[in-house]
Amino acid sequence: MNTDELTTPALLVESAALEANLAAMATARPGAQLRPHVKAHKCTALAARQRAAGHPGFTCATIREVEGMVAAGLGGDLLLANEVLDTRRLGAVIERGARVTLAVDSVATVEAAARGGVREVVIDVNVGLPRCGCPPERAGALASLARERGLEVRGVMGYEGHLMMHTPEDDRARRTEEAMKLLLGAHADVGGELVSGGGTGTYAVNTWVTEIQAGSYTLMDTSYTAAGLPFQQSLSVLGTVISVSDGMGGGEPWAVADVGLKALGMDHGNPTIGGAAVWYCSDEHVTFKPERPGSVRVGDRVRVLPGHVDPTVAKHEAMYLVDGSRVLERWPVDLRGW
Amino acid sequence: MNTDELTTPALLVESAALEANLAAMATARPGAQLRPHVKAHKCTALAARQRAAGHPGFTCATIREVEGMVAAGLGGDLLLANEVLDTRRLGAVIERGARVTLAVDSVATVEAAARGGVREVVIDVNVGLPRCGCPPERAGALASLARERGLEVRGVMGYEGHLMMHTPEDDRARRTEEAMKLLLGAHADVGGELVSGGGTGTYAVNTWVTEIQAGSYTLMDTSYTAAGLPFQQSLSVLGTVISVSDGMGGGEPWAVADVGLKALGMDHGNPTIGGAAVWYCSDEHVTFKPERPGSVRVGDRVRVLPGHVDPTVAKHEAMYLVDGSRVLERWPVDLRGW
Repeated sequence: MNTDELTTPALLVESAALEANLAAMATARPGAQLRPHVKAHKCTALAARQRAAGHPGFTCATIREVEGMVAAGLGGDLLLANEVLDTRRLGAVIERGARVTLAVDSVATVEAAARGGVREVVIDVNVGLPRCGCPPERAGALASLARERGLEVRGVMGYEGHLMMHTPEDDRARRTEEAMKLLLGAHADVGGELVSGGGTGTYAVNTWVTEIQAGSYTLMDTSYTAAGLPFQQSLSVLGTVISVSDGMGGGEPWAVADVGLKALGMDHGNPTIGGAAVWYCSDEHVTFKPERPGSVRVGDRVRVLPGHVDPTVAKHEAMYLVDGSRVLERWPVDLRGW
Repeated sequence: MNTDELTTPALLVESAALEANLAAMATARPGAQLRPHVKAHKCTALAARQRAAGHPGFTCATIREVEGMVAAGLGGDLLLANEVLDTRRLGAVIERGARVTLAVDSVATVEAAARGGVREVVIDVNVGLPRCGCPPERAGALASLARERGLEVRGVMGYEGHLMMHTPEDDRARRTEEAMKLLLGAHADVGGELVSGGGTGTYAVNTWVTEIQAGSYTLMDTSYTAAGLPFQQSLSVLGTVISVSDGMGGGEPWAVADVGLKALGMDHGNPTIGGAAVWYCSDEHVTFKPERPGSVRVGDRVRVLPGHVDPTVAKHEAMYLVDGSRVLERWPVDLRGW
């Protein structure tokens, strides 16, 4: 099958770039040193490639992701790196044999974990991002409470999300060290074998954790590329040019493709198109100005590079693994929803 | 069923507000004067309510929306108000008895329509938004070409999307008049019974078209509400508070709910939460500062109001029609994808 036969908009993953990214990360963070985060791609077929690259456990952001990974036979060691209260759904998959470790950061989430049939937790520690995680000085007491409730405490996690795209890189390293010292201090009080953190932006400079939670390195986007990382953009959204204009009122000519904001994560801004300037996106359209007027015709296919990969993928039912214009495989995006 | 039992994030539609919106529009634009645009809600159950309110035809933005409306028995008079080249899918539903009129704006799209088995078209005219639509002065020639190819030309459409939220409203009216004069000029050359255009932002001031293509009036969002329209925000995203912080380094306290940017259309910016200031969204989280610290606890439910309703709905599998905390119906968002 050729990409020209795909209904657009369609998510494409360039196989060679994906394989290079998988290999580069497996070299830098081999085996259990990486716990790939599936929220970036929401695709069990891609997760299976990550396991084949040597990484045995996975990170999830939602209960649905946990359930989907278990259903795909990838539930051997899952970390749900997020607070949840609907813990009975986790208890149900654990009961059937999956291993799921849940992040907790409060008395309420510890008690929900115990109540729902969760057996293992990590203490989520705030390391500077104003989001989840307890203050480092309270981690030890929460671990004690968890153990009192019969939970196994596997260690700590702390996500330095505010530093993922921080530049310059030497300052990213310095600030990551500061954040991880908070996490290691908490770990001294908590114990356990896991110190989990990091992401695609800090995988190289975060040398304090026992495992990195990166996911976006597989697909990449224009934001992470701008952060100076050694991974290639393997993901794009294939579109069809549906309208070409000569310009309006003597203005510049433009073209329109069928890749709109319903097909793109927009929180990092507009996508980019090679050889063109993107003007704006609407629901089902991207309007852009080709560098060479006349070079774009109705029916042409274009590749649109998203600003933020994670929410882009979550909008599509499937991604297509391709080698240029040749479609190799169709991978369902089977971890969507909640 | 109570909303407390719903898995979060969950789309809620307040029944009374929806009914008020449906009634207000049906009074202002009764019957065929409104051709509701289903892209705003992607939900055939809601479209059925619009038909029950007296509107016989519908507007679609994608082929999938057309196919889904036909499957739901709502395919009596559909306008696909967008250019497409994959016209065989439309020909297939027309062959089985649906009535589908397709927008065309170029020789290529006219020829694709004829080739794919489409029988009826409107000429899409550019009225000032740099997107699709032919220049007004070319509309007559395109209509002639379409008729030569055996297509029935039902009239013209032109979308003044650049004016939907234009303020002040009297200037919105003046500029809409200018745009619609371009469309009426094209209509004089094209003929046919349809002059289709407008949207929720201009339904009251666009008195030149024969039918308005509004959809967002049913659900509304913070952007349209800011534009001074008489419709109520019926849509919200229900979330669960999963973490509450005392503040960090002496800073202000905050809370986190499980309504992240994967559950929200972000192209109009952050959502809002009553009684709180939203700081930022990440994939599965919204971090916000409650006006009254201590008023929010882990496990509380919050309603998050999206900035842009259309892409928000497209991220969810279903919406729940509610009366306060009582769940009345579950409506699948069955027109998603492409």
